[in-house]
Amino acid sequence: MFQVRVKADFAAAHFLRDYHGKCENLHGHNYKVYAHVQGKNLDEGGMLLDFTELKKALKAVCDKIDHTNLNDIAFFEQNPSAERIAMYIYEGIIELIPGLKKTDGESAYLYAIDVFETDNNRARYLPD
Amino acid sequence: MFQVRVKADFAAAHFLRDYHGKCENLHGHNYKVYAHVQGKNLDEGGMLLDFTELKKALKAVCDKIDHTNLNDIAFFEQNPSAERIAMYIYEGIIELIPGLKKTDGESAYLYAIDVFETDNNRARYLPD
Amino acid sequence: MFQVRVKADFAAAHFLRDYHGKCENLHGHNYKVYAHVQGKNLDEGGMLLDFTELKKALKAVCDKIDHTNLNDIAFFEQNPSAERIAMYIYEGIIELIPGLKKTDGESAYLYAIDVFETDNNRARYLPD
Repeated sequence: MFQVRVKADFAAAHFLRDYHGKCENLHGHNYKVYAHVQGKNLDEGGMLLDFTELKKALKAVCDKIDHTNLNDIAFFEQNPSAERIAMYIYEGIIELIPGLKKTDGESAYLYAIDVFETDNNRARYLPD
Repeated sequence: MFQVRVKADFAAAHFLRDYHGKCENLHGHNYKVYAHVQGKNLDEGGMLLDFTELKKALKAVCDKIDHTNLNDIAFFEQNPSAERIAMYIYEGIIELIPGLKKTDGESAYLYAIDVFETDNNRARYLPD
Repeated sequence: MFQVRVKADFAAAHFLRDYHGKCENLHGHNYKVYAHVQGKNLDEGGMLLDFTELKKALKAVCDKIDHTNLNDIAFFEQNPSAERIAMYIYEGIIELIPGLKKTDGESAYLYAIDVFETDNNRARYLPD
């Protein structure tokens, strides 16, 4: 089995609704994001998939929320938690590269998204 | 599936009994520790669990061994190896938040503890 | 379950054959490599295995390709992709410590190799 991980980042404002603590105030983070792809076979060039293609998709999705207030985006009505941001980025990449959706387990698929709010706090989304 | 990871650190002295090499001498490390929680569902606020609560528990456990000689602590009679320290921290967090013990797999649980002796050497404990 | 992870690095030149993009030009990286071992039981000293032994083997394998042009090495005829480099290092460690090959799942085994081409791009090989 092989896995490939690429990185992107974005900066955004957010606050958490119905939360008691510092995060209920509007603030922001320099978010770091990792996209992980997993698969069984390498292509003829010895690659699971091209780092560059995956990075391009990840960056395109992050660019959509870069320098925004996440609370203004419909997807985050529940809350722009790191967990929900990871789901948002997962769905954004799948929209750009539908072939990365997990199907039979034979072809390479997007198996995890990591969102770091800070270097110390990470949320990960793993689609079923 | 969602995962959340938080960090703490502590500094302690230790040496390894019955070991031939540099680690048999009393020395110390700035240990870095990560606690990982995993679960299927987000709460109404879009969170697997509150980063802050998990960090508080992790910090409380690390504080108990911060600036100590680990060899003086009963739990480490076998040896204060990074693997054993990870077990110690796991058990300490479960004592503080019993709900994080793995049960039916439906609710969020503490699924791994990482202990870095140095940036290059990591041990991980994953309870069964 | 326990895991241990150690690190090494090496610097090498490479280029990708049959690739359209910057990587088709001869260039190089400071590669970072992590070897992960997993197992169920600790030894009498409280260790899954000795960090030092694993690091020694990982370093010996990395030294073989340090300051080389990876494209000149027979193993990389297909391409010196990060995925293939991870396989190369896996096989090199198993040659040095055959006991780390996965067998019945009871004894500790080498379960993953990470190769970072840059801090942002990682490939991982997990033997079946």
